[in-house]
This record gives sequence, structure tokens and C-alpha cells, in this order.
Amino acid sequence: MTIDLNADLGEGFGNWRLGDDAAMLDVVTSANVACGFHAGDPLIIRRTCAAAVDRGVMIGAQVSYRDLAGFGRREMEVDAEELCAEVLYQLAAVDGIARAMGGRVSYVKPHGALYNRICRDPEQAEAVVAAVVDYDRSLPMLTLPVSAVHEIAAREGLSTVTEAFADRAYTPAGTLVSRRSPGAVLHDPAEVAARAVRMVTAGTVTAVDGSEVAMDARSICVHGDTPDAVLLARAIRDGLLAAGVTLKAFR
Amino acid sequence: MTIDLNADLGEGFGNWRLGDDAAMLDVVTSANVACGFHAGDPLIIRRTCAAAVDRGVMIGAQVSYRDLAGFGRREMEVDAEELCAEVLYQLAAVDGIARAMGGRVSYVKPHGALYNRICRDPEQAEAVVAAVVDYDRSLPMLTLPVSAVHEIAAREGLSTVTEAFADRAYTPAGTLVSRRSPGAVLHDPAEVAARAVRMVTAGTVTAVDGSEVAMDARSICVHGDTPDAVLLARAIRDGLLAAGVTLKAFR
Amino acid sequence: MTIDLNADLGEGFGNWRLGDDAAMLDVVTSANVACGFHAGDPLIIRRTCAAAVDRGVMIGAQVSYRDLAGFGRREMEVDAEELCAEVLYQLAAVDGIARAMGGRVSYVKPHGALYNRICRDPEQAEAVVAAVVDYDRSLPMLTLPVSAVHEIAAREGLSTVTEAFADRAYTPAGTLVSRRSPGAVLHDPAEVAARAVRMVTAGTVTAVDGSEVAMDARSICVHGDTPDAVLLARAIRDGLLAAGVTLKAFR
Amino acid sequence: MTIDLNADLGEGFGNWRLGDDAAMLDVVTSANVACGFHAGDPLIIRRTCAAAVDRGVMIGAQVSYRDLAGFGRREMEVDAEELCAEVLYQLAAVDGIARAMGGRVSYVKPHGALYNRICRDPEQAEAVVAAVVDYDRSLPMLTLPVSAVHEIAAREGLSTVTEAFADRAYTPAGTLVSRRSPGAVLHDPAEVAARAVRMVTAGTVTAVDGSEVAMDARSICVHGDTPDAVLLARAIRDGLLAAGVTLKAFR
Repeated sequence: MTIDLNADLGEGFGNWRLGDDAAMLDVVTSANVACGFHAGDPLIIRRTCAAAVDRGVMIGAQVSYRDLAGFGRREMEVDAEELCAEVLYQLAAVDGIARAMGGRVSYVKPHGALYNRICRDPEQAEAVVAAVVDYDRSLPMLTLPVSAVHEIAAREGLSTVTEAFADRAYTPAGTLVSRRSPGAVLHDPAEVAARAVRMVTAGTVTAVDGSEVAMDARSICVHGDTPDAVLLARAIRDGLLAAGVTLKAFR
Repeated sequence: MTIDLNADLGEGFGNWRLGDDAAMLDVVTSANVACGFHAGDPLIIRRTCAAAVDRGVMIGAQVSYRDLAGFGRREMEVDAEELCAEVLYQLAAVDGIARAMGGRVSYVKPHGALYNRICRDPEQAEAVVAAVVDYDRSLPMLTLPVSAVHEIAAREGLSTVTEAFADRAYTPAGTLVSRRSPGAVLHDPAEVAARAVRMVTAGTVTAVDGSEVAMDARSICVHGDTPDAVLLARAIRDGLLAAGVTLKAFR
Repeated sequence: MTIDLNADLGEGFGNWRLGDDAAMLDVVTSANVACGFHAGDPLIIRRTCAAAVDRGVMIGAQVSYRDLAGFGRREMEVDAEELCAEVLYQLAAVDGIARAMGGRVSYVKPHGALYNRICRDPEQAEAVVAAVVDYDRSLPMLTLPVSAVHEIAAREGLSTVTEAFADRAYTPAGTLVSRRSPGAVLHDPAEVAARAVRMVTAGTVTAVDGSEVAMDARSICVHGDTPDAVLLARAIRDGLLAAGVTLKAFR
Repeated sequence: MTIDLNADLGEGFGNWRLGDDAAMLDVVTSANVACGFHAGDPLIIRRTCAAAVDRGVMIGAQVSYRDLAGFGRREMEVDAEELCAEVLYQLAAVDGIARAMGGRVSYVKPHGALYNRICRDPEQAEAVVAAVVDYDRSLPMLTLPVSAVHEIAAREGLSTVTEAFADRAYTPAGTLVSRRSPGAVLHDPAEVAARAVRMVTAGTVTAVDGSEVAMDARSICVHGDTPDAVLLARAIRDGLLAAGVTLKAFR
């Protein structure tokens, strides 16, 4: 039994920092490195890539809408051709820096509003998939299983890796409960760690109605942008290790 | 007798355009593609690279300070480590896009204030050279012959290619007359074309005091940001061809 | 019979220019000055305001989404509270500059995607209206007559001024034909000028089905971002003057 | 005996925060509100102004170079005319927001590299002073006493208010010891508080050579960007109050 743990890293900008990257690099096996469009400047990207290489953590490109002021959390009506070029630009920039640091980009994970949008918008999903195909069609995308981007990637010959969220409530259909609903986000470290263990060892998660839902994820996403989030991420890691699960990058 | 002609291309941003890129791609053999920091957005970069590949024009990365509002024309006190990361980011982004379009970045030409600054500032010159070395030490830099960056590149094992300016006045020492001096910029197409021809065929240029100065350039820089500039660039090209010079990328 | 002519001005940024502002200041009676979020930097804003004051042209704040790369033409899911603050910031900045130049902002005209969005989205419309009310409730907004923003402005005690488009096709319901439909934009100067004259003198416009639609506009919007657009704008102005219409700012 | 305490506030951007603004608003009597060019977005500016008005803290415009990536800490070769327009834009934007919140901008304090540059560069100092004069010549500038900006402001009829730094070492000439020198910044709260008390009650500070230097400041600058900085700021406040000093905005 093995699983990957991924988290967003390098999400500062200039003088600002977000989260404790050093702590998270000891928790995760994959680092979604911000590419400069929602967060991350070239120096932060370089340091994050260098630190990831140092700790043997796999590097992914966390591509985003061009929206520093909104941290990439606002959907934008970007033309497909422009979005494709923007994703290509970010992916190439971070891969080039990662290579200069002795590593490389091994996967792509869209960020924030773009991540959500391409789960349901085929036009933008095609644009993102096309950028990855144009750059390196051997790179997998980290996504949700039932989504427009999942289908389009499969059609275009791009592999996808499914991720799960140990601290989020699931519907009986296996989709995430909206953050606006009460109980959508779980906070108890013991409970969240136990869910992570069951996701990996049993391949299921308990949905909000009590039913068991199949969960075939190859990576679990953890957060590190607050001290509490780091504690939760550590609890997940420790729980998985205690259950005999091997933590290992999915690639 | 062969010479390269280089010009800045892809210097629009979003809804704005600068110069007639299509016309200039018929004039030059090397395109200094703006990388997004002083001009150029991902879509413009992709289109410019695609057009250059189409016409067989060599692609260079025109790296710059991060300064859209000032078009990269204002010197900035950037820390060396940060500048190095910024150059690496730009170079990787444009190279990745160029490769996706079937080409590649074949050289680096710093833009505007950065170009001037690293002619005399060893610290910033080292930062730029280090970025190129980190990314791909086989890439030459397009620079002025007597400069800090020229020396540092040589020391670090990076090759440099000297460029000349057919429409600029030269001092007897072989350096450019400051743009603030009267007569610093020449406008007569016949005169400028004749100077270009002599630079290539005789290896000299007439300085402001009438003396002949040796000029061992492998590329001539032309401008295309105004209709007049395009006419001048064409005059240089036609003059060189009429004199039996072969126009060919330097690499 | 009097009418106002308004156009977007000051839509350059840094080294880039858009349209012929000097020519348009001789055509219009109201200048929608870009505020820095989709176009316009502080120096361009100051020069545009100074030139408008010089020619006796009324100044309006052309507020926008924060989107330089997309020229404010992409709808964004901005929180209402943030959008309100962004509009307030832009309005205050341009009004302060206009006052320092001896003028003032006399109205507000949202730009591009924001203009369209608040015609149908009450939440964003309320945010924009709230910003104007917070800054100076005596400032009218330039808008389309049948729209969410029109209703909400009325409810909040903000006055609105209706504008019409002489070069756009209208539906029998008095709304604009979508730009994606064939024939949505008229290009013949004589025809466009004649439509402008009938809008003012008869208060009607001929819709795409041949019916006459009432048109109670106090301003006509003209464009100046291409040489052809300037010619069209001049034709409208000349046509109106020839028909005995007085051109005068609406306020 | 009265003194003003000023601190930089509202220096977050989008999703990023810097320092504990709420805590600092209980310490200071004047808030230097970031204007959006080095930090501060419209929503943060509005909230900061509203909170300052709420607590009776005076608002100043903390104008800066346009440099989000460098947090305004890098000197830039900006043309005087452009710098003047940029300062005017920022000042007008924050004053307009402050007024909408029931307050107003009562002074101007340049930030970071601009603050330092205009102490010695007459051209940029004139540009900043001209912007303040253009906007409202009754607004004082918060500066160092022996400086280009101080002289030029006096010449142009703009008043200046001198500030001192309780946690910085001073030379016998009354200027700040460079941050690069050892001992330039003091960290012991008791010592710093005692220095603040002597600055106000005795009008002197002990220089690095042990001599007493006259210090005629009307405001003391405190920092709040780290938890330690907030503790230091509170120690200064408590020390001054314990010594019978009245804390009061300088205007």
C-alpha cells in the first residue's frame, strides 16, 4: 500500500509569505509549486524547487489564471487560445527552473478557480490539456476523477492522477460537498487521519449520508497555509505511516 | 561575407501592439522575443515564436527587468540572486514555448536598461550570466564588445556575440555616442545602409571625429517599432544584399 | 436639440498607445478616462485630464475590472465588497488627478466586461453603484437604459444617463444586437451619421427588422481606437452639426 | 509633552497579510496607509482607513514606487514627471477612500526606497513635493530633518514633520547608522522605550560614539510587521505613557 501526499508550496510573492514551506516539505511527497500567476515569484520558485530537490520531493507545476490580486481564486473568461499559452508559459518557466536546480516538473496541477472550472468547462479544459500536450505529453495531470478535464485528457492521450481530500466531506456520488455547506471541511486531526488511512487501505470514504463511497485516489491533497493546517497534514502523514502505508510520489 | 540582423519582436502586451512584427520577420535573421517582463504576454510570445519558426528566423530570449509600466527602460536595484532567478524564469518560459512551436531559444539578449546596466555593473552582469549558465551554458549572449558582461561571460565559459548599430554614431573608442548627444542617431536610410555595408565588408565604422574604428560585429541590430524604423531596417537589408553580403543567423 | 458625444480616452499604458486621443478630443464633449485597471497609467491619466480641461471636454471615470492583460474585457467573479473598493479607488484616483489639473470627474462609465456584466448582474451592479454613492452621490452613471445597474442606481438615488451607439444595430426591443451576429456593427460613415442625427432629432433608431424604436439617449458613444474609427467619429460629429444639433456635455 | 507614533499599515495584498494591523492601531496615533503600489489593494485600503477612523487614528498616504514584487524597496530611475503623476494617483486614491470612510488623508509619508532616495535626490524629491502641492498644499510630509526633500518642501511652501526612530542607532551628526553596520538596529524593548522617552522629554538621543545629539522630532516611527515588532511598539507606547508623555497625532 502506497500513497502520494501533495500540497501547494511556494505561494508567497515578493515580501509576502504563505504557509510554512519547510515544514510541509517534511510532510509531503509531491510539491505543487506556484508558477508566478497567482503566487510565486522567480526567486521563490527557485528556492522551492531547490528545497524540493534536496528533500527528494517530486515537483509539479501549479498553473493558474493570471490573477495575483485574487490569488487565482476567481474564475475568468479567458479565451482558450490565451489560456493555453498562459499554461504553457508557466509550465515551461517552472520546469526550466526545476531543471536548473537538478530536478524537473513531473506533473501539472491547476490551481484554485482554474482547477474547479476545468472540471466542468470543456473549452478551458481543452486549453489546459493542449498546453500540457504541447509541452510534454508524458506529464500527468493531478485532478478529480469525474470531470471534463479528466475526460479530455484521456481523449488526448494525457494521463491523469486522481487525488482525494481527507479533510473534505464527500457526497454519496463521490464528489466534494461545496465549501459553502456546513460540515464541508473537517478539522479534527484524528478523524481526518483516520479517513486518510481508510481511503488508502480500504479504498473508500464515508459520505455525508453515512454510505461508503469508493475512492481510488493515488494522491491525497493536504494544506499547509496555516499552523493548524500543518498540524493536520502531519497527523495525516503520521496516521498513514502508523497504518503501514508507504508514502511515495505517484510517479 | 555573412552577417546576422537582429530586432526586438513580440513587444506588445494584451490589447497593445508595438511595431510591425510581420514586416520585420521578413527583414531579420534573428528575433529577440520579449519574455513577458517588459513586454510580451504568453499568447504574443507563442505567436511570435511560431511565426519565427515559420520563416526560419532564429529565436532569442529578450530578458528584462520586471517593469511593464516602464517597458524595462528604467534601471532597478534588484538583488543579484533575484535578478538571476528572474532571468532564468523568462529564459525557460520562452524556450519552452519556442520548443512547443518547433523551435528553440538559441541565444539571450538582455533588454533596455538591463542591457545597459550589465555593460558596467559586474554584480548584475554576473547574475544574468549565472542564469544563462544554469539554464544552458551553450547559449551565447548578444552584447557589446567592451563591457562587464562580456568579460564575465568569457570568465564563466559562456560565449558572447558582438552586435553593432548601423544607425548609431560611434566614438573613436568604438563605443556608442549617448542618445542625449546631438547626432547620436542617424536617420537617412542610404547613409545607414552604407554604414552597415562597411561594417560587414570593411570591418570598420566612421566615428564622430572622422576616424575609422574597427568593428568586428557578428550581428547588426535593427529597429522596427515605427513605420520609419521598418523602412530603415529594409534599407539596411537591401543594402547588404546588394553588396553581396549573405544574411544568416549567427549560430 | 443638444447631444453629448463620449469616447474612451487615455487607454495606453507605459510605452503603449491606443487610438488618437488628440483627434478625439476635437470630436467629443465627454472623455471616459481610463483609470489604470484595464489601461491608463498615472502619467497618461494626468495628460489626458489636462488635455480634456484644455479643450473644455467633460471628464468621466472609466472604471474597470483589474485586468491589464485582458484590457478589462473578461468577466471576473470578483466579490462585491472587493469590486466596490476597486471602483472607489479608481474613481478617487482619477478625480484627484483631474482636480489637480483644474477639472474634475463629472460622471462614471464602467468599461468593457464590467459595463456588460452590471447590465444583468445585480450583485456586481450594486457594488459599482455603492462605490459611486460612497464617493459622491451627485455623480451620474453612463449606462444602457434597460439594465440591472439602471434600476439599482435609481433605487439608490444615483442618476443615470442613457447612451446610444450610432454604429451598432438594435433589436426591436431597443437592445444592442450581439457583436457576434452579422451586421451588428455598421461601418459606413454616411449611414452611421444619419442614424446619429435621427437618434437626436427624431428620438428613434431603425431596428434590424425595419421597425422604428424609441431612443431617448443623452449621449452617443463613439470610438477612436483605429484611424477608421476616428473618421467615423468625425462623420457623426459633422452630421450632427450640419443637422443643427448642438454638441454639449450632458451635465 | 506630546508625541505622535506612526507605523506602516495595510501592507498586505490580495491573499497576503503583513503584520498585525489591529494590534498596531491600538499602539499608534498615525497610520501610514499603503496605497497599492508597493502593497495594499483597494479592499485592504478601505478596511484600514475604516479601522483607523474607528479608533481615531490619523491617516497618512504611504506613497511608493510602483513595485509590488520588490515591496517598494528597490530604487528606480523613474522620470520626474511620471513619478509626480504616480504619487498624485496614489494620494488621490487613498484620500478618496478615506473620505468615503468618514476620514481623510492628513499627511504623506513616502515608503521604502522612495523615502531614502528623496532624502538625497533633488529631482525625485521635487517630483514628490510637486504631487503633494498639486493635490493639497496643506498636507505635511513626514520625513527626515536633514534631506533634499525637507529643503525642497520648505522652498515650495509645503510643511514637513520630522520623525525619529527609537530602535535605530544614530551617528553624532544626527543621521541614521546604515542598516548594514552592526548595531544599527536595537532590539531590547526596555532600551528602545527609554530612548523614545529621552527623545521626547529631553529632545536628545545618544549617538553611537556616546555623545548626545539633539532630536527635535514630532513623530516616532514604530514597526509592526513581526510579533516582536509589535511587542517593541507596545513597549515604546507604554514607556512614553509611564513617563507622562501624551500620545497625539501631530496634526
